[in-house]
Amino acid sequence: MSGPVSDPLDLNADLGEGFGVWSLGDDEGLLDVVTSANVACGFHAGDASTMRRVCVLAAAREVAVGAQVSYRDLAGFGRREMVVPPAELTAEVLYQIAALDGIARAEGGRVSYVKPHGALYNRAIRDPVQAKAIVEAVCRYDPALPLLTLPHGEAAAAGTAAGLTVVAEAFADRAYLDDGTLMPRGQPGAVLTDPEQVASRAVGMATRQVVSAASGQDVPVPARSLCIHGDTAGAVGLARAVRAALAAAGVTVQPFA
Amino acid sequence: MSGPVSDPLDLNADLGEGFGVWSLGDDEGLLDVVTSANVACGFHAGDASTMRRVCVLAAAREVAVGAQVSYRDLAGFGRREMVVPPAELTAEVLYQIAALDGIARAEGGRVSYVKPHGALYNRAIRDPVQAKAIVEAVCRYDPALPLLTLPHGEAAAAGTAAGLTVVAEAFADRAYLDDGTLMPRGQPGAVLTDPEQVASRAVGMATRQVVSAASGQDVPVPARSLCIHGDTAGAVGLARAVRAALAAAGVTVQPFA
Amino acid sequence: MSGPVSDPLDLNADLGEGFGVWSLGDDEGLLDVVTSANVACGFHAGDASTMRRVCVLAAAREVAVGAQVSYRDLAGFGRREMVVPPAELTAEVLYQIAALDGIARAEGGRVSYVKPHGALYNRAIRDPVQAKAIVEAVCRYDPALPLLTLPHGEAAAAGTAAGLTVVAEAFADRAYLDDGTLMPRGQPGAVLTDPEQVASRAVGMATRQVVSAASGQDVPVPARSLCIHGDTAGAVGLARAVRAALAAAGVTVQPFA
Amino acid sequence: MSGPVSDPLDLNADLGEGFGVWSLGDDEGLLDVVTSANVACGFHAGDASTMRRVCVLAAAREVAVGAQVSYRDLAGFGRREMVVPPAELTAEVLYQIAALDGIARAEGGRVSYVKPHGALYNRAIRDPVQAKAIVEAVCRYDPALPLLTLPHGEAAAAGTAAGLTVVAEAFADRAYLDDGTLMPRGQPGAVLTDPEQVASRAVGMATRQVVSAASGQDVPVPARSLCIHGDTAGAVGLARAVRAALAAAGVTVQPFA
Repeated sequence: MSGPVSDPLDLNADLGEGFGVWSLGDDEGLLDVVTSANVACGFHAGDASTMRRVCVLAAAREVAVGAQVSYRDLAGFGRREMVVPPAELTAEVLYQIAALDGIARAEGGRVSYVKPHGALYNRAIRDPVQAKAIVEAVCRYDPALPLLTLPHGEAAAAGTAAGLTVVAEAFADRAYLDDGTLMPRGQPGAVLTDPEQVASRAVGMATRQVVSAASGQDVPVPARSLCIHGDTAGAVGLARAVRAALAAAGVTVQPFA
Repeated sequence: MSGPVSDPLDLNADLGEGFGVWSLGDDEGLLDVVTSANVACGFHAGDASTMRRVCVLAAAREVAVGAQVSYRDLAGFGRREMVVPPAELTAEVLYQIAALDGIARAEGGRVSYVKPHGALYNRAIRDPVQAKAIVEAVCRYDPALPLLTLPHGEAAAAGTAAGLTVVAEAFADRAYLDDGTLMPRGQPGAVLTDPEQVASRAVGMATRQVVSAASGQDVPVPARSLCIHGDTAGAVGLARAVRAALAAAGVTVQPFA
Repeated sequence: MSGPVSDPLDLNADLGEGFGVWSLGDDEGLLDVVTSANVACGFHAGDASTMRRVCVLAAAREVAVGAQVSYRDLAGFGRREMVVPPAELTAEVLYQIAALDGIARAEGGRVSYVKPHGALYNRAIRDPVQAKAIVEAVCRYDPALPLLTLPHGEAAAAGTAAGLTVVAEAFADRAYLDDGTLMPRGQPGAVLTDPEQVASRAVGMATRQVVSAASGQDVPVPARSLCIHGDTAGAVGLARAVRAALAAAGVTVQPFA
Repeated sequence: MSGPVSDPLDLNADLGEGFGVWSLGDDEGLLDVVTSANVACGFHAGDASTMRRVCVLAAAREVAVGAQVSYRDLAGFGRREMVVPPAELTAEVLYQIAALDGIARAEGGRVSYVKPHGALYNRAIRDPVQAKAIVEAVCRYDPALPLLTLPHGEAAAAGTAAGLTVVAEAFADRAYLDDGTLMPRGQPGAVLTDPEQVASRAVGMATRQVVSAASGQDVPVPARSLCIHGDTAGAVGLARAVRAALAAAGVTVQPFA
C-alpha cells in the first residue's frame, strides 16, 4: 500500500446502554468492529449485569473499556442537561468510574479512559465548571486515564490544564460547520447515514485530518478516535463500512489506551 | 491491669446512610468511637457525595471501611427482602463494592471487608443461593476481603467454602436466644438500650465469649467484631459506653482488617 | 353462525412497558387487537411520557385502560419478588393507580381495572397478606374497579371478600396442569408459540370454558379475559390469530370494564 | 380590633419531604400552623407512604393540599436545574399531580393547587418554555387548579395566559431587592431568622402589601399566600410567631383554595 502514512486511529462506540430488561443497540455486533467501548455505568443506562456482560465481551476481543459517565438520569437517558454543583458532579463521576473499573477488573479488563455521555458531554464542552468537576474526578481516580472528548472546548482545556491526556475524537457521520464544530442535531443534514459517504469522510479524517464542512469547505479535524453511533438502525453496518474503508486506505485501527 | 488476656475486638457500625439532602445518624460521632465503618454504597442509602465524605473522615481516623452491600431499594432502605436471581445479585454486589472501593482509594483508603445490609444480611444467613451469590461477588472482586456476618448461617458457610475469611460479629444490644441466634426485633426486650447493661454484655462477649440469653442461660458468642447500631437515638453514647468498658476490661479495640 | 352462544370475552395485554429511551413490545400493534391494556405505571416500567402516549392511543381505539401495578423495581422489571410491609404496598399500589388514572383522564379515558404485574401478580396469588394490601389500595381508590387475576388464589379471594369485582383471566399460550394452575415457565412446553394451537385453545376457553392440560385431560378454565403476552417476538401476530379465531367462532370480543 | 381591614392571607409550607426511612422537617408541627401544605409527590422527595400519611394529617386539620411538583431528581432533592423537553416535563408534572390527588382523595381530601419545587420553581420564573410546560400539565389535569408562584415571572405569565388562577406568594423570611425580587440565597442577610422581625414583615405584607427591602426602601409585595420554610431549625417556631402576629393584627389566615 502506497500513499501517505497515517497515524493509527481508534473507533469508539457507546455500549452497554440497556437497563434491566431493556436493550439498546447491538453490543456484540459493535464489539466486533470498534476498538474502544464507551460503557454506560448505571447513571443514564447500564445496570450491573449489563456492565459485567459487556466487560466480559470486551475483554475477550481486546476492546478497550471506557467509563461513559453521565448525569444521574435514567428516565432521560442522560440527555437532559443538569446544573449539578461541582463537588456533587465530581463524586458522581468518581462513583461511576470506580463501579465500572471494579467490574472490568473482575472480568480481566480495566477502565482505560473516560468519556462523558450525552448532555454532560455537551455541557462540559462549553461549561468550565462542569468540565473541571469531571476532570477532578478522573484525576482523583487515576490521573493516567485519558479523557476522550472534542478537541476544542472546556473539557479538553480543563483536562490539559490538569495534566490529563486528552484524546480528540471526531464524528464521521455528523455534518461539520466551518469553525470545526458539529452542526446541531436538529438541523437538516446534521446526521449522515449513507455508509459510503460516512466511510469516505472517516478516511479523510484519518489520512488528511480534514473533513468537508456543510459549506463545502475543508476544515481540519485532528482526531485520534472516531465515534460510531451505536443506537441507530444500521449502526453495525455503518461501523463495518468505516472499518473496511480505513483498512483499505492503510489506516491502522487500534485503541488509543 | 490483671485478669484474663483477651483477643482484640473490633467495633463496627453502619455509616453513610443518608441520601442526598437526607441524613441519618451521627457519622462523625460514630467514627470517633468505632474501628470499622460499614459504608452504604448507594443501593439502600449513600449517594456518591456522602460516600466520599465518609471515606475522607474514616481515612483521617484510620477507621477501616467496609462495603455495606444491599438490595437495590432506596425506597425501602434495603429492608425489604427480594428474590434476586443469583447472577444479578452477584453483579449488583460487585458494583457496590467497586464503587465504594474506588471512592475510598481516591481518598487515601480502601474497602477492607464486605458486610451485607438489612434484608440481604438476614436472607443470606438462611438462603444458600443468595449467600453464595454474595460470596461470588467478593471472590471476583478480591478474595482477600473478609466477609463480616453472623458466625452461624449460610453466609458464613458459603464464605468459608469459597476460601474467604469469615469474621464473626455479635450484638451487645440485642437479646439472644438459647441457640445463639438473635431474638427477633418485634419481640419485647429484643433491643437493649441501657448503656451500662450493653457495655457489660460487650465485655462478657470480649473476655469470655459468652452472653446471657433471655432465658438467663449463658450462651457462647464467638465474635471478632461487635456491631453498634448507629441509627438509634443515643447511638453514639452507647458506643462510647461500650468502648470505655472494653478499655477498662483491658480489651484492645482494633479493626480486624 | 350456529353453535353454542358464548359470553363475550376480553383480550388483555401488557402495554407501555418501555421506560425513557427504551421501548418494549409493539404497543400500537397490540392496541389494534386487544380490548384491554394493562398499562405500566412507572414502578417496573412506564415513564410519564410513555403512559400518556399509551393512554392517548387507547382512548382513540376505545381500548380499556387498566393499572398494571408492580413492586418498585425498575432494574428488575418487577420480576423480583419483594417482602413489602402491607401498609407500604397499599400506598405504593394506590400511588400507581392514581398516577395512571389522572393521566388517562387528562387524555379522555380513565383507569377501569387493576392488574398486578410480574412478581407481585404471582405473590398475590399465594400470599394473603400482599393480596389484601393490593385489594385495600383498590378499595381506597375506587371500590368499583375490578381486579383482574387468576380465578383461584389469594388475590381473587381477598378481592371477593372485600366486595371487589374479580375478573378471571386465562392464558391461551401457556400449558395448564390438571389442577387448573399454570405449568411453571421454566419447564419445557410451558409456553406455546404456535398461533394455530394458541388460537384453538382460546376458542375452547371462550366457548367451552375448558382447556386441554399438558396431560391431555380437559380442565375447566372459567375466564372473562384472555391474557396475550406482548413482549415476545410475534406477539402481535399471535394476538391477531387469537382474535380472528374467536371472531370465526362467533365469540364477541369486548372489554369487561 | 380597629385599623385597616386586610384581605385573608394563606400560609403555605413544604411538607412530606422525607423519603422512605428518611425524614425532613416537622410535618405535624407545621400542619398545625399553616393553611396550605405543598406536598412532595415522589420526584424530589415523598414516597407513597409519606404522601398518604401527610394527606391524612392535612385532611384532619382542613389544611389545603397542593402538589409540590419537581424535576425527577431524588439524589439532588430537585435542586439541580434540568433542561427537560417540554412534552416530557408536562407528562412528569401531570404524573405527580395525579398521583398525589388520587392519594389525597382516598384519604378524604384532594389536590387544590399546584406549586413547583426548588430548581423547577426558579427555572419556571425565568424560562417561558418550562413555565408553559407546567401550566399545560395543570390545564390538562384540571384547569380549575390555581398555580402558586411569585407574582412576577414567566410561570405567572404562562398561567394567566392559559386562564389559570395564579396565586401570588411572598417570603417573610427572605430579604427583598428594590425591584421586588428576592435577594439570592448565597448573599449575607438573604435569609432572616429572627421570629419577631419575620413576623413583623409578615404583618406588613398582609396589611399594607409592602416589605422593607434590603436598601430600606418600601417595595410592594402583593401576596395572597406567605411561604414558610419548613426545613430549617426553628421552622415551626417561626411559623407560630408569624401566625400569632397576623392574628394580633386582625388578619384572617385561611387557604386560598
